[in-house]
Amino acid sequence: MKPLFIITNDDGYNAKGIHALTDVARQLGDVVVMAPAGNASGQSHSFTATRPLRVNTISEEEGLSIYACDGTPVDCIKVCDQFYCPRRPSLVLSGINHGSNSSINVLYSGTMGAVLEASVAGFPAIGFSLLDHNPDADFGPALPFVRNIIEMVLQKGLPQRVSLNVNIPVPTDGVIKGMKLCRQSVAKWLNSYERLIDPHGRPYYWIAGQFECDDNDEGTDQWALENGYVSIVPTTADFTAYSFLESREIANPTT
Amino acid sequence: MKPLFIITNDDGYNAKGIHALTDVARQLGDVVVMAPAGNASGQSHSFTATRPLRVNTISEEEGLSIYACDGTPVDCIKVCDQFYCPRRPSLVLSGINHGSNSSINVLYSGTMGAVLEASVAGFPAIGFSLLDHNPDADFGPALPFVRNIIEMVLQKGLPQRVSLNVNIPVPTDGVIKGMKLCRQSVAKWLNSYERLIDPHGRPYYWIAGQFECDDNDEGTDQWALENGYVSIVPTTADFTAYSFLESREIANPTT
Repeated sequence: MKPLFIITNDDGYNAKGIHALTDVARQLGDVVVMAPAGNASGQSHSFTATRPLRVNTISEEEGLSIYACDGTPVDCIKVCDQFYCPRRPSLVLSGINHGSNSSINVLYSGTMGAVLEASVAGFPAIGFSLLDHNPDADFGPALPFVRNIIEMVLQKGLPQRVSLNVNIPVPTDGVIKGMKLCRQSVAKWLNSYERLIDPHGRPYYWIAGQFECDDNDEGTDQWALENGYVSIVPTTADFTAYSFLESREIANPTT
Repeated sequence: MKPLFIITNDDGYNAKGIHALTDVARQLGDVVVMAPAGNASGQSHSFTATRPLRVNTISEEEGLSIYACDGTPVDCIKVCDQFYCPRRPSLVLSGINHGSNSSINVLYSGTMGAVLEASVAGFPAIGFSLLDHNPDADFGPALPFVRNIIEMVLQKGLPQRVSLNVNIPVPTDGVIKGMKLCRQSVAKWLNSYERLIDPHGRPYYWIAGQFECDDNDEGTDQWALENGYVSIVPTTADFTAYSFLESREIANPTT
């Protein structure tokens, strides 16, 4: 039996990046695309409970079905798994995102939300992101790496509840040097809303934001990307801070 | 100078749980409440970028200001930090959530999304949740523990980028036995949408879901809660799966 891939993203089913990823996956197996109908960036791990979901069939042909869902990337994984997979998927893929999901961006990313959801559900899963926000970004140089990583995971698998967060640089000389297994850099987005006044005199706030990262030692994803390497961060949905856990006692309140 | 608390939640500024938390915090310092205007459960770490945010002033008095924001819990932290804090907050509090955020629920929770956002921004932060979804839940038995944990963190602080995910049981005998420092249990929500047909003959999907957790050894939050203890999981936004990182090499593609 050929491998079956579920593919999603957070840029919408018609983004250039998901087409590129689908083309790679089609060379290796069958594909079900279930992706948001429109842009769902910054949706993180949110899901839809207060209204029902709709799924539109975009196309269904031998080995490749494409559906658009009016929910989040996490919704896409959940509904696809239950209703739209002809057999158990071998691997869940998300992306290729237009823009970075390295470092702390993993926390906000709908692309990586879908990956963590798939991983928690028991599927091996990989998120791919290119460091270029342009809707017409050139995914060409990234594709040999994308294919290689998919093949590695098909062959060797991943430990239970470990997924991969893959980010691909766009070096100025066009040459990607290789791949590095990394830890997630410590970083943050500085809050910098623009405060503006609407035509009726009321204020509103529009997020701008500036990425701040001082943690770029060798071994971090930030270092890898700045030095022309694809960064691969093995990722877990266990948020426990184990270092703290091992060092503390909790006293009970005296009430 | 008195401590200043930012308080948010994902049940909305007018939920009973946030009033209970605000009452506790007011005994210890000044409070700025910036919470979603309505229910924002399941919003995880999502934020609003494609439209501006609005903030409504609910009330402003000496030591207690309350604002409602039409964004997510993460938006609340970001906009409050930049525009609505008279001085640097000592501590960010989120909740008290109506319903559990233990185990894998931390991934989906807007309450904990706000906590992780505050922690990444450099503030000590605590999320509180009561294991009772009822809008009129009785928060009384939880409050001595809530106050005790806040006082502990005010006194001892938290390590950089470590926050706390506190869940409070509702034992059948009404007696909470104490507190346990725990790791996050492994669990998942089984996907179980109801597939229904609308009056126009088109299908729609409404999420139901069933929580499945077999990981309830002593030391887990699941064990603590099932045995009548408050669970405290130290939580990080570093998603790196370090065990995998230490064990693997990555080969470059041969292209």
